Amino acid sequence: MPGLQSERTTLHRLPERGSHDREVIDPILDEAYLCHLGFTQDGQPFVIPTIHARVGDVLYVHGSAASRAMRTAKVGIPVCVTVTLLDGLVLARSAFHHSMNYRSVIVLGTAIEVTDPAEKAAALDAIVDHVLAGRASDARPGNDKERKATTVLRIPLTEASAKVRTGGPKDDPEDMALPVWAGVVPLRVVAGAPERDPKCAVPAPRYLTKER
Amino acid sequence: MPGLQSERTTLHRLPERGSHDREVIDPILDEAYLCHLGFTQDGQPFVIPTIHARVGDVLYVHGSAASRAMRTAKVGIPVCVTVTLLDGLVLARSAFHHSMNYRSVIVLGTAIEVTDPAEKAAALDAIVDHVLAGRASDARPGNDKERKATTVLRIPLTEASAKVRTGGPKDDPEDMALPVWAGVVPLRVVAGAPERDPKCAVPAPRYLTKER
Repeated sequence: MPGLQSERTTLHRLPERGSHDREVIDPILDEAYLCHLGFTQDGQPFVIPTIHARVGDVLYVHGSAASRAMRTAKVGIPVCVTVTLLDGLVLARSAFHHSMNYRSVIVLGTAIEVTDPAEKAAALDAIVDHVLAGRASDARPGNDKERKATTVLRIPLTEASAKVRTGGPKDDPEDMALPVWAGVVPLRVVAGAPERDPKCAVPAPRYLTKER
Repeated sequence: MPGLQSERTTLHRLPERGSHDREVIDPILDEAYLCHLGFTQDGQPFVIPTIHARVGDVLYVHGSAASRAMRTAKVGIPVCVTVTLLDGLVLARSAFHHSMNYRSVIVLGTAIEVTDPAEKAAALDAIVDHVLAGRASDARPGNDKERKATTVLRIPLTEASAKVRTGGPKDDPEDMALPVWAGVVPLRVVAGAPERDPKCAVPAPRYLTKER
């Protein structure tokens, strides 16, 4: 696959942490439950959390057709979609070298509303399956009214960068002997036991009970 | 405390999930490890993950003085700072009513670089302590060179909104009898056992070993 570098996504800061390779970018996009969608309206940037899904070379985000984000962005404006996975707190001997371990992706592009019914239905399925693989074929599919109430934006994956930090603190040599604990506190997102709706008698499906 | 409603932060979509009260907003800002900072440069929005801290009525974010985000934003431009805490996946009987439980805050404002040395030092301490309470007084404090390499932005908490979704799926009455599992998969961020730097012999301090 071609890289997604552009002048705007070139990583100037700590480029050794960065990548424009789809092999790095795609798994981060696919793992993150949600993204932050940035757009500008009347000179004011807005950053909205929403759910996305990647289908091949396209990133889809969705939202209520009545929302400001969707009404603003669907006409085709520059957007930025950022996902961040937090992997740990990095505690260095010096305050300055404190950091976090993370994997993030920034996608720049022009969002365009998906109007083709087949593409829209497939994108919505992908968004449901992105949250929980196997779920889209189980739930009652959307109907015309519901699809009309939802806007799906399409952002081609042509300009993007990933940034990844791993490992322990990187202290200055003269700080190494300081009597300060240094290391990493790993963080991860854990799913608890599914909580069934009291009005539901259906046993948990396999995609819910398997090891996550 | 006064509410932080403005025309721009008024919640039009699902206003029952929203709030402009500091009693709702502050704990969300304080709990989130990281925020997403949105700014616009040459018409292109950028959304950058970074670490923040709230001190009273001010939100601070920081970054490398050499980064695009800090170089762009420090001159005083409109920004949006968004934090999102993900609490669960909401699985409804219909695809349309799938959702997530979350707590998010959006802060709008003009970022201004903090140049007062005392305010900057206090903000940087707050950012370290935001990540891990008690840490700032333990680590080696920043020196002039380090403070120069770091830009801190100040965003007054005057225009903000919170949005919170809790509880189970809200299906349409005609879908309630469908043979589809419905409920919530709770999610939470869990800290693992601290991993000490192999070159460090200092025992874990109390703020690391206490129940998180």
